[in-house]
Amino acid sequence: MVGDVVIHGDYEFDRALAMERRSDFTFDGAVAPGWDILGNANGGYLMAVAARAMSEVTGRPDCFTVTAHYLAPAPVSATRVEVRPVRAGRRFATATSSLFLVDEPGGTGGRECLRVIATMGDLSSDPGGPTTMVGSRPDITPWDECPTISNTTINEFAFIHGRLGTRIDPRDAVFRTGAPSGEGVMRGWFAFRDDRPIDSLALLLACDAFPPAAFNLDLPTNWVPTVELTVHVRAIPAPGPVACFFRTRFVQNGLLEADGEVWDAAGTLVAQSRQLALAPRA
Amino acid sequence: MVGDVVIHGDYEFDRALAMERRSDFTFDGAVAPGWDILGNANGGYLMAVAARAMSEVTGRPDCFTVTAHYLAPAPVSATRVEVRPVRAGRRFATATSSLFLVDEPGGTGGRECLRVIATMGDLSSDPGGPTTMVGSRPDITPWDECPTISNTTINEFAFIHGRLGTRIDPRDAVFRTGAPSGEGVMRGWFAFRDDRPIDSLALLLACDAFPPAAFNLDLPTNWVPTVELTVHVRAIPAPGPVACFFRTRFVQNGLLEADGEVWDAAGTLVAQSRQLALAPRA
Repeated sequence: MVGDVVIHGDYEFDRALAMERRSDFTFDGAVAPGWDILGNANGGYLMAVAARAMSEVTGRPDCFTVTAHYLAPAPVSATRVEVRPVRAGRRFATATSSLFLVDEPGGTGGRECLRVIATMGDLSSDPGGPTTMVGSRPDITPWDECPTISNTTINEFAFIHGRLGTRIDPRDAVFRTGAPSGEGVMRGWFAFRDDRPIDSLALLLACDAFPPAAFNLDLPTNWVPTVELTVHVRAIPAPGPVACFFRTRFVQNGLLEADGEVWDAAGTLVAQSRQLALAPRA
Repeated sequence: MVGDVVIHGDYEFDRALAMERRSDFTFDGAVAPGWDILGNANGGYLMAVAARAMSEVTGRPDCFTVTAHYLAPAPVSATRVEVRPVRAGRRFATATSSLFLVDEPGGTGGRECLRVIATMGDLSSDPGGPTTMVGSRPDITPWDECPTISNTTINEFAFIHGRLGTRIDPRDAVFRTGAPSGEGVMRGWFAFRDDRPIDSLALLLACDAFPPAAFNLDLPTNWVPTVELTVHVRAIPAPGPVACFFRTRFVQNGLLEADGEVWDAAGTLVAQSRQLALAPRA
């Protein structure tokens, strides 16, 4: 209903996604503090903000496939999300959305920082079909043998890790000592520090919540600005942290891809991601 | 200019992308015959139609990253493409577009079969940056040892191969004998039968022009409907056919991903693709 406050749950991430419905297709909210790296909100968090609004409009809880194009950095700000339905079918609904930074809550105009398209559905009631897995979960060091990112030097600029319980595989944490592995891989575990359950919205965040896999290549450790991020949510995760594997294989002429896989505690593939980003510069 | 016929080149693919500019943001064209599988136009061809129009509006020749959501099958038809600019910067311009099937040339209304978002630029003048390659071109059987798809049983239903010079690696052509490799891989070479040079638009077609990699899994050989296709064009190809590698690793609950890499004759990565599709059913 117009005027309703849209919030699902009472964890930090839920509060950071809260918004007020201003019209059938418009939501007032905020880029919340603490989900940023040096003042610029995390791209997965921004994608989740847009997806949250699209889910309200389409009535479908899960992004089967969602793509965001990043147009401008997003500091803490009041926001407006405008959703435009494209098509609604029995199984899937497609919509686009724009995230605007506005001067004050309820403001109009503003600067668009994110354009999103998603095909959404309901994974819990999806008709499903065959399963044939050629690949399997990558080798990732067990949760309790991985150091946490919170309360580390990373947390002094990647403030988002104050919210997260994310852990990095020791084999990939080597970039922090100035000795990148050269493999272009970043593995570990994603969780919330306040133990919020990981749903399909949280998977959008998980797909962009690790230090760039490119930090384990012989490149400067600097901004890796995302041009576009696509996430396929493949299943709703079982309870517990999710295992994450990110890899950058091709840094070519200043552009790179980062491919992600996310697996739940039950051994199910719950998400795949790919982003196109600009290579870090000195 | 409004009223201009937009056509670049005189090869079959150029003619199949020809359109007339009706307004600053609207183009009348067609889903041309012969780019289909049993009457439904190929998804890469449809993406190229939309990208052609977006290139005219943005003044940028190349899709650095483009995502299409497939809303309905597209038989031969008159079309209208509507482009909506999102943002234009110095290096990149972002736009969305819709492809409608209309009753007659110049018609309004119609059924939307494709919604697209792209961030475009000019690869020939891009400022570039560092190159660090962890991966390399997959092993693909040389061009002259791969059988052509044209004039084969495949061509009796995948009519698009009458236009193409596409060849399949013999190791992956085994699905045609009813003995899939089980590896979920489809390798080969993409070219046009009329030797049209392969530009960034043609790469969008190349990324969807092979039989599904899922045909080399133990699944029915039937429709693999694309929900969403994303292509990153990473470089303009050197002259000659391009080597293509497609792989499906995870068919899970009726959904699958297909990842693609395209490499040119000079050994440059020219495109990466990923699509989310529905698993084939009996």
